[in-house]
Amino acid sequence: MSDKQEALFENIVVIGLGLIGSSLTRGIKQRGLAVHLFGYDGSAKVRQEARDIDIGAQIVDELAPTVSKADLVILAVPVGAMANLAAQVCPLIKPGAILSDVGSVKQSIIEAVSPLMPENTHFVPGHPVAGTEFSGPSSGFGHLFEDRWCILTPVEGGDQQAINSLKLLWQQLGSQVECMSAAHHDIVLAITSHIPHLIAYNIVGTAADLEDVTKSEVIKFSAGGFRDFTRIAASDPVMWRDVFMNNKEAVLEMLGRFTEDLTQLQRHIRRDDGQALQDLFSRTRAIRRSIVEAGQETQEADFGRTKG
Amino acid sequence: MSDKQEALFENIVVIGLGLIGSSLTRGIKQRGLAVHLFGYDGSAKVRQEARDIDIGAQIVDELAPTVSKADLVILAVPVGAMANLAAQVCPLIKPGAILSDVGSVKQSIIEAVSPLMPENTHFVPGHPVAGTEFSGPSSGFGHLFEDRWCILTPVEGGDQQAINSLKLLWQQLGSQVECMSAAHHDIVLAITSHIPHLIAYNIVGTAADLEDVTKSEVIKFSAGGFRDFTRIAASDPVMWRDVFMNNKEAVLEMLGRFTEDLTQLQRHIRRDDGQALQDLFSRTRAIRRSIVEAGQETQEADFGRTKG
Repeated sequence: MSDKQEALFENIVVIGLGLIGSSLTRGIKQRGLAVHLFGYDGSAKVRQEARDIDIGAQIVDELAPTVSKADLVILAVPVGAMANLAAQVCPLIKPGAILSDVGSVKQSIIEAVSPLMPENTHFVPGHPVAGTEFSGPSSGFGHLFEDRWCILTPVEGGDQQAINSLKLLWQQLGSQVECMSAAHHDIVLAITSHIPHLIAYNIVGTAADLEDVTKSEVIKFSAGGFRDFTRIAASDPVMWRDVFMNNKEAVLEMLGRFTEDLTQLQRHIRRDDGQALQDLFSRTRAIRRSIVEAGQETQEADFGRTKG
Repeated sequence: MSDKQEALFENIVVIGLGLIGSSLTRGIKQRGLAVHLFGYDGSAKVRQEARDIDIGAQIVDELAPTVSKADLVILAVPVGAMANLAAQVCPLIKPGAILSDVGSVKQSIIEAVSPLMPENTHFVPGHPVAGTEFSGPSSGFGHLFEDRWCILTPVEGGDQQAINSLKLLWQQLGSQVECMSAAHHDIVLAITSHIPHLIAYNIVGTAADLEDVTKSEVIKFSAGGFRDFTRIAASDPVMWRDVFMNNKEAVLEMLGRFTEDLTQLQRHIRRDDGQALQDLFSRTRAIRRSIVEAGQETQEADFGRTKG
């Protein structure tokens, strides 16, 4: 098929076959980026599901034989599961091979994984900024990463060739790649991803707990704005629990700023300061326009929602 | 065309030709719900735009001759502009005719409009819970109200026949109709619409003002969740200023609950209470499922976003 590229790696294994992992195997397979592609998941049920639907990889039941011959190992499990998994995986990695991950938090993963890397192996932490609200192997698709950004956060003294190989892999999956420090990543993603999820989860919880508004009313009249928030509040609970537990400092810092601004807005409303409200509401349109222009959002009204 | 129904009114005039007003004229025209359909806007520029693109109504330059012969007058201007407009329009309404509106807040409009209604005329306040992030006559479309809810908040002693006529109009536009008190409406919409808009505007403002994260980073990595919020934060600034100014009490009450819950979440993060986070994050998935099942949201992943 026209997507096909030259293989970049002889053996790739993806560990964790949820939305991101199974999108990776599909994308790698569709573009022919590995000569041999393997997939593993800690859950036998998930492995079976992955086999049943064919996610483009040979699904294996044991880590050791596959990891020990892999040129690239990608960890695609929730952030909180990375340390345990790395303890199993790292000792098996062969000299010259690359380990990477797709975790939404980078500093805590680097702290956990780096000390476990054997001599002459290369850890290149990564984070594809892409996803949907669905989970599991069936929810993945090979073009998930197209036109999205993948952030790499190389460790100090990281091997440049290994970084370049991983960069090429993501580019061939359709992503643009940016390198930055793990600390900066964790701050940037706190505002562009973690806080949005936190307040979405929060408002859905608030709405569910009201006594004077029924659940049926919340559902019927959700087209007024609320339903937009329910999409990301439907994201994987364990994955997101781990994000907040592992990016605590940056999340609390950004949450503090969000709350400070919200308190100011509250004061404007209480004091009938319409001009201050209008000033803010007028500024925010420009940001969406920039996001659309940058190819990170559809320009269609209402996200191009069809029915519903 | 197959959409065509029997005309429900001889003469309808829609005043205010933005997203909602021009969607109304298009929908009414497409379904043949008026024998004669007129449109007016206070801005000559908007009237010209509406004429140029044809929104299904005859655009008039003067209110008096059109309103005085209308059987149904619909006010489709921002909530804050309703009182002044009503002062012009109400004295012109003919006996037996109905006045309605589409404002997102109902108590303040009823207080402003009811005293102005002449004898033997009927005020039936309404609110179609539908919209997009775009404004102006070009952004409207005739099926905007299909499968959405329209809320009517009849005034005390309101004429039942007038209520039924308006109900039928909205039903023939494709909406489901629910009647409730204006006070309850203002509480329900505070949580399903007003607070979602407020926190969306707020986070977009917070992100724009950060010193340690560049605007370019916010834009590039917005697919992590942030971009969802920019859609409703791109809504009409004047319309939304007016909503908050006119539904102050309910908005502040709901905002208080939102903030209380957020403070609790913050505490869970600070205290590393992963279980409490996971519990909330697991509850919220069910609400989205209900919204999809109720036909108020697409079931496609990521809102069915195409590119971008």
